[in-house]
Amino acid sequence: MILKALREEVLEANLELVRRGLVLYTFGNASGIARDEGLVVIKPSGVPYDKMKAEDLVVTNLDGKIVEGSLRPSSDLPTHLILYREFASIGGIAHTHSRAATSWAQAQREIPCFGTTHADYFHGPIPVTKPLTPAQIRADYEANTGHAIVRRFAKLDPLHLPAVLVAGHAPFCWGATPAEAAHIAVIVEEIAAMASQTIAANPRARCISQHLHDKHFRRKHGRDAYYGQNK
Amino acid sequence: MILKALREEVLEANLELVRRGLVLYTFGNASGIARDEGLVVIKPSGVPYDKMKAEDLVVTNLDGKIVEGSLRPSSDLPTHLILYREFASIGGIAHTHSRAATSWAQAQREIPCFGTTHADYFHGPIPVTKPLTPAQIRADYEANTGHAIVRRFAKLDPLHLPAVLVAGHAPFCWGATPAEAAHIAVIVEEIAAMASQTIAANPRARCISQHLHDKHFRRKHGRDAYYGQNK
Amino acid sequence: MILKALREEVLEANLELVRRGLVLYTFGNASGIARDEGLVVIKPSGVPYDKMKAEDLVVTNLDGKIVEGSLRPSSDLPTHLILYREFASIGGIAHTHSRAATSWAQAQREIPCFGTTHADYFHGPIPVTKPLTPAQIRADYEANTGHAIVRRFAKLDPLHLPAVLVAGHAPFCWGATPAEAAHIAVIVEEIAAMASQTIAANPRARCISQHLHDKHFRRKHGRDAYYGQNK
Amino acid sequence: MILKALREEVLEANLELVRRGLVLYTFGNASGIARDEGLVVIKPSGVPYDKMKAEDLVVTNLDGKIVEGSLRPSSDLPTHLILYREFASIGGIAHTHSRAATSWAQAQREIPCFGTTHADYFHGPIPVTKPLTPAQIRADYEANTGHAIVRRFAKLDPLHLPAVLVAGHAPFCWGATPAEAAHIAVIVEEIAAMASQTIAANPRARCISQHLHDKHFRRKHGRDAYYGQNK
Repeated sequence: MILKALREEVLEANLELVRRGLVLYTFGNASGIARDEGLVVIKPSGVPYDKMKAEDLVVTNLDGKIVEGSLRPSSDLPTHLILYREFASIGGIAHTHSRAATSWAQAQREIPCFGTTHADYFHGPIPVTKPLTPAQIRADYEANTGHAIVRRFAKLDPLHLPAVLVAGHAPFCWGATPAEAAHIAVIVEEIAAMASQTIAANPRARCISQHLHDKHFRRKHGRDAYYGQNK
Repeated sequence: MILKALREEVLEANLELVRRGLVLYTFGNASGIARDEGLVVIKPSGVPYDKMKAEDLVVTNLDGKIVEGSLRPSSDLPTHLILYREFASIGGIAHTHSRAATSWAQAQREIPCFGTTHADYFHGPIPVTKPLTPAQIRADYEANTGHAIVRRFAKLDPLHLPAVLVAGHAPFCWGATPAEAAHIAVIVEEIAAMASQTIAANPRARCISQHLHDKHFRRKHGRDAYYGQNK
Repeated sequence: MILKALREEVLEANLELVRRGLVLYTFGNASGIARDEGLVVIKPSGVPYDKMKAEDLVVTNLDGKIVEGSLRPSSDLPTHLILYREFASIGGIAHTHSRAATSWAQAQREIPCFGTTHADYFHGPIPVTKPLTPAQIRADYEANTGHAIVRRFAKLDPLHLPAVLVAGHAPFCWGATPAEAAHIAVIVEEIAAMASQTIAANPRARCISQHLHDKHFRRKHGRDAYYGQNK
Repeated sequence: MILKALREEVLEANLELVRRGLVLYTFGNASGIARDEGLVVIKPSGVPYDKMKAEDLVVTNLDGKIVEGSLRPSSDLPTHLILYREFASIGGIAHTHSRAATSWAQAQREIPCFGTTHADYFHGPIPVTKPLTPAQIRADYEANTGHAIVRRFAKLDPLHLPAVLVAGHAPFCWGATPAEAAHIAVIVEEIAAMASQTIAANPRARCISQHLHDKHFRRKHGRDAYYGQNK
């Protein structure tokens, strides 16, 4: 069996989505990439999480050809592949239909940065893709979902904004590793739930200032970060 | 004891409603039908779930006559029977007062298809029945609830829209088996909760396009489905 | 130790409030009455639930004089006593600050009957008391809370409407036994949560018809009830 | 190892935040002060709660100099220090990003006293700080957060209002001990959640009267308190 360590990481990222209450039944999927080998490890389609083993995961190349595995990969595989091809800095992807984040995706509204919890992770509002056209839905739908995300990020850095809301669908999240991608999926759900309650408490709530936003993002990211322990 | 396997399936469907947090106390009920025998297995009325055994379930014919069982069947039995008689394709029914779905039933508002989670399961908005007339409430209330559902589905396929919101009451859900019916009850609750949060995030939220709706429904249903593993 | 059986019932009712997530820390209290002896058993004030034993409960007469027990009774005792004196049909009382029901009490808005879950338990909207006057707050505050409830029920039957929202405070619930009172506290929380979600889904949501309301209440109460098993 | 007892108290206060569902991952922090020694014990930055031991906590003096401990203290330490220096009556501080309270902080709206749950703990609305200026964010951001809190409390008693919402950030809570601070953090979350549901149930909901507010606060605080047991 190839990529044993990455398989374990991807399995663990998938199980983290379950433990945090982000998935119902077989919803959601997480994957990871071995950049040197150009191989992706992803959850199989429609398999219950509680029976999933590392060997059930599917290994494909960046064209989606199955290299190892007897099960079908997640039907969202083509979306993952586009993101891995276009976002060279990412190493893991997590996709869920978690309740609050999906609700914002369905509302087709970006999540404004209402506070420092958001600013600690995202250097801007959490963006929403444009809806796909009928032609983009008809053929290569999942790949076109990836392309819509990539277009939305034309001027954005994926590691500074590690998630997107796909309009009318749900969030896709990513990070340097599968574990980070799952972590971001948890954070996006929390930020989305807080944003809903913020506008309920004050329909005219406003974003925090760019100064405060920058300050918090840089406390945790980049060369001047001072949150956490020295690595 | 007759219909032992179906009794176990129906018990399991009832317990799934409990595990998923859809029922309080003795609320809710699930049933299943043996089409060849023309017999229905249903939860007894007002019995605690944690003590319920397969032999406590009640077996009736399609006229509601008890064929086996010493307990009274669920008071909603007549609704189940009408649905089994009129919807030939269904094999199980689950009824809950789960919080979010019941709230939409109380709001007497169909649940619009705001996203792909909904489209994966329902080929249209989740419909609401018309309120019953005083005469329909006075006599044969539970059977008339079933008739109101059937009238609402005059032009709809019950397997393409496997749930209904009974106005001022709560959802009834169904599927090819009791397990599928319980699964749909869980999904309806999730879709209802997301729909509430969607309109909170954007009061002008709109349905997804018919193209996207069709695409997702057909990814999972019918001859071109490609979600999950080959059976 | 007197009233051992009632002490166990009251302890159990208090613990049910904890198990159902209705209380934080030492919030809430349940009591029961032995009508023949004219004695009330109630939770002690500010004692953690997880260490509470039947012998920690306090027994008082209907004037609030402690008959047995070394701890102070709940500070809400005078409210309970007024209710026991004025509502001859009740045998138990439960008071919580459960989140959704307390929110409606704070909103000082009666809970309209939006659906059959409500109608199964309450034969009308869940009423709200009038706010107390400064004089009623200054002296005998807890007894005056009881009097405000009694005034609100001048034309109402407490067993047909087994709960009230005290304006700006929280619900008081009751029943024939302490267990029933705790059960109603759980139901009131669920009905309140559903009512909030109902008006969120449809700000113009309306009550169900009086016919449907009567039908459901009488399915479960009175001589024509046909829900549950024969006792 | 110095301050062993206080270390245990502070560890316990941090773990209480976890048990009550107020923190995600490494969010949040609690601290305590030994007034005689002028030393503060605080959670280390970015360390998982489930592996935290009393010896991992960091001891600093009131200038923030580390006196004992090999890990970095919480990045919010300077905020804690300002509060300990300016609020002589407090012995513990807890900071969380709990969902509902953080949402009100993000909404930059003080929490009105809608009911007696609030009045039992806070003698007034829960205040919000003013947003920091760009200069206050640029340098000594965390200390300036503390100064903003202190300015907001110029005419307020910190033990009568044991929490504040930092605008666009989250709550800081305190008390006579670390345990009390954590307790207040739980209460603030509950009050915030109830306040949101109160305005959802009635957008024109109003504060309770000053008489009722005073009555409940004094039932639990000061020389005329009569809630709980004699100490």
